[in-house]
Amino acid sequence: MSKFWSPFVKDLVPYVPGEQPKLAKLVKLNTNENPYGPSPKALAAMQAELGDNLRLYPDPNGERLKQAVADYYGVQANQVFVGNGSDEVLAHAFHGLFQHGKPLLFPDVTYSFYPVYCGLYGIDFEALPLDEQFQIRVEDYARPNGGIIFPNPNAPTGCLLALEAIERLLRANPDTVVLVDEAYIDFGGESAISLVNQYPNLLVAQTLSKSRSLAGLRVGLAVGHPELIEALERIKNSFNSYPLDRMAIAGAAAAFEDRAYFEQTCAQVIASRTAVVDGLEALGFEVLPSAANFVFARHPDRDAATIAAGLREQGVIVRHFKQARIAQFLRITIGAPEQNQALLDALQGL
Amino acid sequence: MSKFWSPFVKDLVPYVPGEQPKLAKLVKLNTNENPYGPSPKALAAMQAELGDNLRLYPDPNGERLKQAVADYYGVQANQVFVGNGSDEVLAHAFHGLFQHGKPLLFPDVTYSFYPVYCGLYGIDFEALPLDEQFQIRVEDYARPNGGIIFPNPNAPTGCLLALEAIERLLRANPDTVVLVDEAYIDFGGESAISLVNQYPNLLVAQTLSKSRSLAGLRVGLAVGHPELIEALERIKNSFNSYPLDRMAIAGAAAAFEDRAYFEQTCAQVIASRTAVVDGLEALGFEVLPSAANFVFARHPDRDAATIAAGLREQGVIVRHFKQARIAQFLRITIGAPEQNQALLDALQGL
Repeated sequence: MSKFWSPFVKDLVPYVPGEQPKLAKLVKLNTNENPYGPSPKALAAMQAELGDNLRLYPDPNGERLKQAVADYYGVQANQVFVGNGSDEVLAHAFHGLFQHGKPLLFPDVTYSFYPVYCGLYGIDFEALPLDEQFQIRVEDYARPNGGIIFPNPNAPTGCLLALEAIERLLRANPDTVVLVDEAYIDFGGESAISLVNQYPNLLVAQTLSKSRSLAGLRVGLAVGHPELIEALERIKNSFNSYPLDRMAIAGAAAAFEDRAYFEQTCAQVIASRTAVVDGLEALGFEVLPSAANFVFARHPDRDAATIAAGLREQGVIVRHFKQARIAQFLRITIGAPEQNQALLDALQGL
Repeated sequence: MSKFWSPFVKDLVPYVPGEQPKLAKLVKLNTNENPYGPSPKALAAMQAELGDNLRLYPDPNGERLKQAVADYYGVQANQVFVGNGSDEVLAHAFHGLFQHGKPLLFPDVTYSFYPVYCGLYGIDFEALPLDEQFQIRVEDYARPNGGIIFPNPNAPTGCLLALEAIERLLRANPDTVVLVDEAYIDFGGESAISLVNQYPNLLVAQTLSKSRSLAGLRVGLAVGHPELIEALERIKNSFNSYPLDRMAIAGAAAAFEDRAYFEQTCAQVIASRTAVVDGLEALGFEVLPSAANFVFARHPDRDAATIAAGLREQGVIVRHFKQARIAQFLRITIGAPEQNQALLDALQGL
């Protein structure tokens, strides 16, 4: 602790992202990246921006991207917020929508960045236990709160909450914001964006890092009532006027416009997931039902940390969380067919 | 004001960036962009990242860029912080280094984002008047404070504070952070980075948007004692793990490595500035001494807002601030020689 730090800094417990190894030969199934590259149209759009015009500032409002998202989901552009990855979008939402002197509610097993944001912005929280099947119990959230957030599908479990259950949550909490974090929705769920015109307390966040294969570009978004979007815009414009660079705006917009490529690659990942689940179950693993581009699996007789270490020795990396309730699970990204086979082969050889 | 907003949101007064017009034909001298494109080596480095690997997350720590900056300035990589534009770097510094229950000090005429950050993070401030020649009076800053920040050269005046004066400030304030915001330093000043090993309370921020012609890429940095950098890293890792995309890390690193292109383009801008000052003075303008890639000028007999409007009608845009003390000044970016001539011709025709 330095005397120069603002006092809260010493208590921060930063988020730890999954490893980004520098060895190119690894079978990298640890950070839920897409095995397929970005849309060729997205690459072409970025290519068009790569030149002398990079000397000029980008559009501070990213209007081209907002319009592409609005067109895709059939909403208005003023219902769309865009940011430097969904993590930045979530940070602004915590700051601008969750500071109400009551605890924020989220599941006990969930995206581990949520308590970190709470630390950054001084927000109390209650982590409500998932049930024995690792499902969210909507009825537990009927208690005083300053907001509710959960990923759907949940991370790192991959389990989906039905839209009907989300509507019950929204109706039970008309005075606080319910933020549905849909990083993985395109791999097996239905987006709650279809509900934003009915529920002014609903904010839906998404990322282009997973289903749109652009983790390396850093673009995220949120969709909701214009009043919620205005809070995010006010924070953004008090923080950083130009969070998205020229290539990010162009590439992300083109990725949303290329529906065919998106649907095809999502379908391939979903098909591979079925094969991975079958393969894991054949090896004796229990696999939670997944609507994401990863599976969450445990072996009844084998220690998860030991399996992860053994896989790594064979050049396959998966993610293991040393955390209550899930310490015997592994989170395994769905890769390309040959990567998935390498995983299953390595597991068989352990 | 929505009931869903965190209460402070309603009082935010966001920053207003300079206009980014969509008409390509304008002579755009309003946001201090560089008239020359980025280094060809920077473009080549971005090109190498533009492909299927964008499906993968970038290095969350941007180590390649930190090392390039460290090599350029002869410091260690752990003395370097990088972020999504210097505005994000400044935001984290306000959050992590300036919340000490005492007012932050900065000049009354300065970068207008500083009071906005204070609003975002609940920091009191005192705006200390520049002297009659629009210079910072170092002796005024010998008062209780929670930190000091100023641009050097100052914005929008372009006036430089000598390193010797900065050292007096640092010695007079050993218990608080002095943040020198060097967005424009490469156009006529000497960086205070040469002092970071002597003064643990010195943090220097820079951007790649001006002298390195990458406003469209969004990269900024800070250099200081590792303890100050650690505060910024803790905030960053509690806010957004991956603020820099793959092309930003590669392009920015290559821009720092290409010293020859950088020195040549800076020299061209500086030479053009001399010509612009001469031309403006021949037209009767008074021009403050500038060490930046812009000049700050007033005409003794003509209204600044009227001049700006007249220029705009002729397709030349400059920046005018409706603000006490400087309402009769125009801030004019140094463009390419033909742009500068277009400006002088347009002024002559008014």
